[in-house]
Amino acid sequence: MAPGAKKGILERLDAGEIVFGDGGFVFALEKRGYVKAGPWTPEAAAEHPEAVRQLHREFLRAGSNVMQTFTFYASDDKLENRGNTLPFSGQQINEAACDLAREVANEGDALVAGGVSQTPSYLSCKSENDVKAIFKKQIDVFVKKDVDFLIAEYFEHVEEAEWAVQVLKSTGKPVAATMCIGPDGDLNGVSPGDCAVKLIKAGAQIVGINCHFDPMTCVKTVKMMKEGVEKAGLKAHYMCQPLAYHTPDCNCQGFIDLPEFPFSLEPRILTRWDMQQYAREAYNAGIRYIGGCCGFEPYHVRALAEELAPEKGSLPQGSEKHGIWGSGLEMHTKPWVRARAHRDYWENLKPASGRPFCPAMAKPNAWGITKGHADLMQQKEATSKDQLKVLFDKSNKSN
Amino acid sequence: MAPGAKKGILERLDAGEIVFGDGGFVFALEKRGYVKAGPWTPEAAAEHPEAVRQLHREFLRAGSNVMQTFTFYASDDKLENRGNTLPFSGQQINEAACDLAREVANEGDALVAGGVSQTPSYLSCKSENDVKAIFKKQIDVFVKKDVDFLIAEYFEHVEEAEWAVQVLKSTGKPVAATMCIGPDGDLNGVSPGDCAVKLIKAGAQIVGINCHFDPMTCVKTVKMMKEGVEKAGLKAHYMCQPLAYHTPDCNCQGFIDLPEFPFSLEPRILTRWDMQQYAREAYNAGIRYIGGCCGFEPYHVRALAEELAPEKGSLPQGSEKHGIWGSGLEMHTKPWVRARAHRDYWENLKPASGRPFCPAMAKPNAWGITKGHADLMQQKEATSKDQLKVLFDKSNKSN
Amino acid sequence: MAPGAKKGILERLDAGEIVFGDGGFVFALEKRGYVKAGPWTPEAAAEHPEAVRQLHREFLRAGSNVMQTFTFYASDDKLENRGNTLPFSGQQINEAACDLAREVANEGDALVAGGVSQTPSYLSCKSENDVKAIFKKQIDVFVKKDVDFLIAEYFEHVEEAEWAVQVLKSTGKPVAATMCIGPDGDLNGVSPGDCAVKLIKAGAQIVGINCHFDPMTCVKTVKMMKEGVEKAGLKAHYMCQPLAYHTPDCNCQGFIDLPEFPFSLEPRILTRWDMQQYAREAYNAGIRYIGGCCGFEPYHVRALAEELAPEKGSLPQGSEKHGIWGSGLEMHTKPWVRARAHRDYWENLKPASGRPFCPAMAKPNAWGITKGHADLMQQKEATSKDQLKVLFDKSNKSN
Amino acid sequence: MAPGAKKGILERLDAGEIVFGDGGFVFALEKRGYVKAGPWTPEAAAEHPEAVRQLHREFLRAGSNVMQTFTFYASDDKLENRGNTLPFSGQQINEAACDLAREVANEGDALVAGGVSQTPSYLSCKSENDVKAIFKKQIDVFVKKDVDFLIAEYFEHVEEAEWAVQVLKSTGKPVAATMCIGPDGDLNGVSPGDCAVKLIKAGAQIVGINCHFDPMTCVKTVKMMKEGVEKAGLKAHYMCQPLAYHTPDCNCQGFIDLPEFPFSLEPRILTRWDMQQYAREAYNAGIRYIGGCCGFEPYHVRALAEELAPEKGSLPQGSEKHGIWGSGLEMHTKPWVRARAHRDYWENLKPASGRPFCPAMAKPNAWGITKGHADLMQQKEATSKDQLKVLFDKSNKSN
Repeated sequence: MAPGAKKGILERLDAGEIVFGDGGFVFALEKRGYVKAGPWTPEAAAEHPEAVRQLHREFLRAGSNVMQTFTFYASDDKLENRGNTLPFSGQQINEAACDLAREVANEGDALVAGGVSQTPSYLSCKSENDVKAIFKKQIDVFVKKDVDFLIAEYFEHVEEAEWAVQVLKSTGKPVAATMCIGPDGDLNGVSPGDCAVKLIKAGAQIVGINCHFDPMTCVKTVKMMKEGVEKAGLKAHYMCQPLAYHTPDCNCQGFIDLPEFPFSLEPRILTRWDMQQYAREAYNAGIRYIGGCCGFEPYHVRALAEELAPEKGSLPQGSEKHGIWGSGLEMHTKPWVRARAHRDYWENLKPASGRPFCPAMAKPNAWGITKGHADLMQQKEATSKDQLKVLFDKSNKSN
Repeated sequence: MAPGAKKGILERLDAGEIVFGDGGFVFALEKRGYVKAGPWTPEAAAEHPEAVRQLHREFLRAGSNVMQTFTFYASDDKLENRGNTLPFSGQQINEAACDLAREVANEGDALVAGGVSQTPSYLSCKSENDVKAIFKKQIDVFVKKDVDFLIAEYFEHVEEAEWAVQVLKSTGKPVAATMCIGPDGDLNGVSPGDCAVKLIKAGAQIVGINCHFDPMTCVKTVKMMKEGVEKAGLKAHYMCQPLAYHTPDCNCQGFIDLPEFPFSLEPRILTRWDMQQYAREAYNAGIRYIGGCCGFEPYHVRALAEELAPEKGSLPQGSEKHGIWGSGLEMHTKPWVRARAHRDYWENLKPASGRPFCPAMAKPNAWGITKGHADLMQQKEATSKDQLKVLFDKSNKSN
Repeated sequence: MAPGAKKGILERLDAGEIVFGDGGFVFALEKRGYVKAGPWTPEAAAEHPEAVRQLHREFLRAGSNVMQTFTFYASDDKLENRGNTLPFSGQQINEAACDLAREVANEGDALVAGGVSQTPSYLSCKSENDVKAIFKKQIDVFVKKDVDFLIAEYFEHVEEAEWAVQVLKSTGKPVAATMCIGPDGDLNGVSPGDCAVKLIKAGAQIVGINCHFDPMTCVKTVKMMKEGVEKAGLKAHYMCQPLAYHTPDCNCQGFIDLPEFPFSLEPRILTRWDMQQYAREAYNAGIRYIGGCCGFEPYHVRALAEELAPEKGSLPQGSEKHGIWGSGLEMHTKPWVRARAHRDYWENLKPASGRPFCPAMAKPNAWGITKGHADLMQQKEATSKDQLKVLFDKSNKSN
Repeated sequence: MAPGAKKGILERLDAGEIVFGDGGFVFALEKRGYVKAGPWTPEAAAEHPEAVRQLHREFLRAGSNVMQTFTFYASDDKLENRGNTLPFSGQQINEAACDLAREVANEGDALVAGGVSQTPSYLSCKSENDVKAIFKKQIDVFVKKDVDFLIAEYFEHVEEAEWAVQVLKSTGKPVAATMCIGPDGDLNGVSPGDCAVKLIKAGAQIVGINCHFDPMTCVKTVKMMKEGVEKAGLKAHYMCQPLAYHTPDCNCQGFIDLPEFPFSLEPRILTRWDMQQYAREAYNAGIRYIGGCCGFEPYHVRALAEELAPEKGSLPQGSEKHGIWGSGLEMHTKPWVRARAHRDYWENLKPASGRPFCPAMAKPNAWGITKGHADLMQQKEATSKDQLKVLFDKSNKSN
């Protein structure tokens, strides 16, 4: 089937189809050795294409209907800000990412989505024109490479997200927009409902949440968006791409502020059964674009697809290597392991951490922030090295 | 450098070099969608070579000096037992696995090790000759493909491990042998020290532990092996390839009996910092072949290599994308995240599980086993479907 | 000093003094063997006066400025409902309780408060007159015995609490009223602020919260009461008598619905340091009548008094046998135990449970209630044995 | 019934009767405000006899067959060491304690046991004669007051315990001896079995364990004692008086070294159901003198008596106010609370701590001790203030 023959994202959603997103590339590729945590480097698409291709392919096998270009933090200002000298230009990285996504999308029934996310330019108070110019550069590549639709994702300020949507919208392609916020709204306190209304008015056809919070919190926040949208007499499709980490102890800024971020999040990783519960909740909430973000591995996406296989009408290819609800254990030599080959068993199990010296919940670091820190957060955050130094000195003094 | 020019495994260990093993293929490939949990299917090498190759490559980048052929549970009796009709013969699978390991090993300074593990034939009480014939079939492939050395791993009964070592030894290649036992010894109660002595007498030059228990338990068990070997006036090299799961609550049969096995082990996954602690402990215990088994992802192996970089004299390639002890956070926009860019921070953090409704430890299922079950375990375990039915009925009746 | 010479409760509070309440008699006496959990029998005052006297005395030594008569669930309808044949009339029990409270109050600077609480009559939909008649009977005893003031406590429905206050008010004595509700308000959804306003309008001079939730939740709820009262342009004194159990996992009905109630609450018991934190929070919130309810032992009250000793201007008598902030350990033979004789140590310690197989939080049983159960709760709850049978059958059917 | 007419302790045990001990006075009276934690002051018997009498009475009601004199740490050297000026001599305190125990014992079928425990004299290396003289002084009181039998308890060094037994034995009264050790033996490494043999040879007819460890650890240690005694061809009765705290994370010195000792042990407190399990285990291990130590409240002893009521042939008096296995909830108004009125419910409940920020287990402080500290422990520990200062300085330097 030629790629052109595929149904577009809006056709699918308008028809009531479930669309499965993919998982988080930066976290997965960090564990595989191709992305540096902290700066969350995006050059792997150009530098190690086989690694990025393979991850796309695994998500495809797992049931993903969308291949997002691996262009997170690949805007020119972010690449400069990082200060590394790379043998690749921003354009090369973005183009390579598009090519890989398209190559794997063509191996199945998946669409390619070009993605942009929040910029250092906005955080350092650049003008609307400057920020939009940054988005424009990435989008020019997406247009040149003819991606199927566009996603503005991972925005903490709805203003910046609106600017991104406006630029994306100018391409004529379908636009999705997700913010990385929780029930308390964006960092200026704009509620999820109001954010969603603003994004739709800016031109997004699909709105929702990605990253920063666990699945149940994200579903709850999308519900609040939906209520806001419906109250405003508007219409939209809804999407959700949460963390694969349990974060019941987050404050308004999400998992970044948890002491475990980003190197000791392991005990928080969701099981496949947690994922099935998430898929069901999301579906029941009226969300039809259901995917994941940081922490999602291919088997997590497969779990979404298996839970909703009855509604979707098909199992993903990867389910050839997976027994539903643990049925792969049916022939185990030990009777007590065979006894685990049942839905009831896995649904009711409260998995132990094996860590008796560790607590169940943590206090977000920012709970203890001084007034100086709080000021910082209410301002847009500084990002250049010099600015950082100033802020750090300030915050040290105020402690 | 031509592969033939590489120093062999024994030359390295004799010279006091650290050799980093790789991680667990069945678990990693299960999460990526290529292996079915339960039967732990090995056909991916023939069926999806790009997935197996990519995983080898990631371990290589992470610092692995050994590429183990992905031939776990790829003995003919296991393939038959499983009852699937595959378009590949056992020989094809084993050959493909050798080729992939060699291909990637040649991309760096790694050796190829051919691996065999415990067989259904032994568990169903086949004769020594029959069991050895099973091993022989896999080993014929390893000889044909000229692997660099051989590993007999994942044995619960020292008798079967000795048989395997004897067959491996007949090839003239160096032989390593690891058992999946804890401090309580093998399933017949043979102590770790006695197991090690038997394996050396059977011909192994490297002995140790793999799978079934967490790193600290495995290091402890290897220490017991070492004490036994030294007490017997023998000599050997020591290796350790543990789980990447915390299992303080295991009984003698390891993580198989934990209620979370194999689908809800997530909260038990070790962090990279836990791995650095393991590497140091293993090194201090005199273990020089240090790797991992189920649950190990590439970043876990990289953590071993980074901890012992001073002793090894080099960092792995993958450390280009990793800041030591969290230094990648040094430029983060939030002061409290920057404050995490230190060894002290990560070494002392007790990571929260985000699961307040879950316990820290679990009771192994077999704790509650009936006498009938205990009988089963003292017998060798039945494996054919019919035998299973009989046993299961029996055990149900006795409950 | 003659009892008549003591300052009254309102004089103390009007002067800005802190008044320390006492702790929970039913739970403390249950552990001592004089009260039956479930029916929470009140006859100990008549049956084992030495036990009740001793508990009063311990609270007095701990710093309590109020001796509440042990008359909880000692209304005639409750005694009948329970169905036991006792050798004591309700009047005898109430009189004995008054005598014991007065006897011990006279040993120090404490006042006697006569207490009434919610009645089966209200729950089974008796008329206002009938319910008030029940209160009247207990209050007649309090008047005869000339208690210093009156408390209406442990009400889940503000309507019944108002009726109680009206009856208490008719005596001319000062009236305090506390409800056993959380931030969600009473069982009909009346907010804490509105409840407080209603109680003041009914005649209470002191309003607040007792029982059902942990200290921090109760302080929060009293704050909401205060906001409501101030918004209504009214004035009152505030009191707080919470559980001595951590209940972060409660739903709107408090600890009754936790699976551990009432026989496995031990791991939730607050330490003395938790109590000091509560005392400080309550004080900061403007609460001046600070005491406790179920779970409070004498040392818990002493901790309140020690935390606020600077504000109160004195330490309780019982502090003769207590080193502030662990100073009693200063001469311990082990250096690492001596190192615990500091405020920093105890304030920062996160105490381990010693229970690795137990979770940190529980799901309240009523979370899983069926619609049938929810209906029951919205109705007033049935209490006679026959009614119970009917309801239980209904709820079984609806499951 | 005259006290003289009661069956003695050995007659009861020889006849196979179960004898229930009492609980821990210092911890219970600390919570009630009469004992200072740290020095664990014993003067309450003389100073506040009503408080001590009441606690005896509660244990008697709970089923205790022995009233131990409240003479813990009431030896003359300990009283001097503490440095307080008391208006009571050691003799007065010991006599008052005997009188109170006898008074309450006479209210039921209980015996009076005079108790001695380890001395500062031994720890500061006084001679055998000096140490024995200390014991002699207390024992002279016990003889004068004609207690029914004697207990040497809470010894960490078997040598000192033997000396105590020898002095007790000289009175002609039955002698019990319990050490506060775990499976690792006394502080010089003498095994539990060897300790028991030594104590019997010194003259004890009853041997066992008290304090420092949780019930299951203590039962296990008494079992080891029993094995040692039987192996030596000797005979004895066995007793067990453990903590009422869960201590799975203790090292060889017990709960003293846990970070929570003594002021944050609350989350570790055993429930009544834990106690029933302990009683059953102790009984099954052949232990017939079953009681408790620090942390035991009257309801804990009642739980022992209720569990073993079928074997004992009677329920304690206090069970009038207790429904077996939660049956007091049978008439609760809420169906889901009534559903808790069953043995299955309470036996299987894993009680939540309500403390999501706290861990399940702690590392004993002494795990991190320096060599300097270890030396201290291998020496006998210094106790005078000057010695302490020297040691503390030393240990600070060595850290």
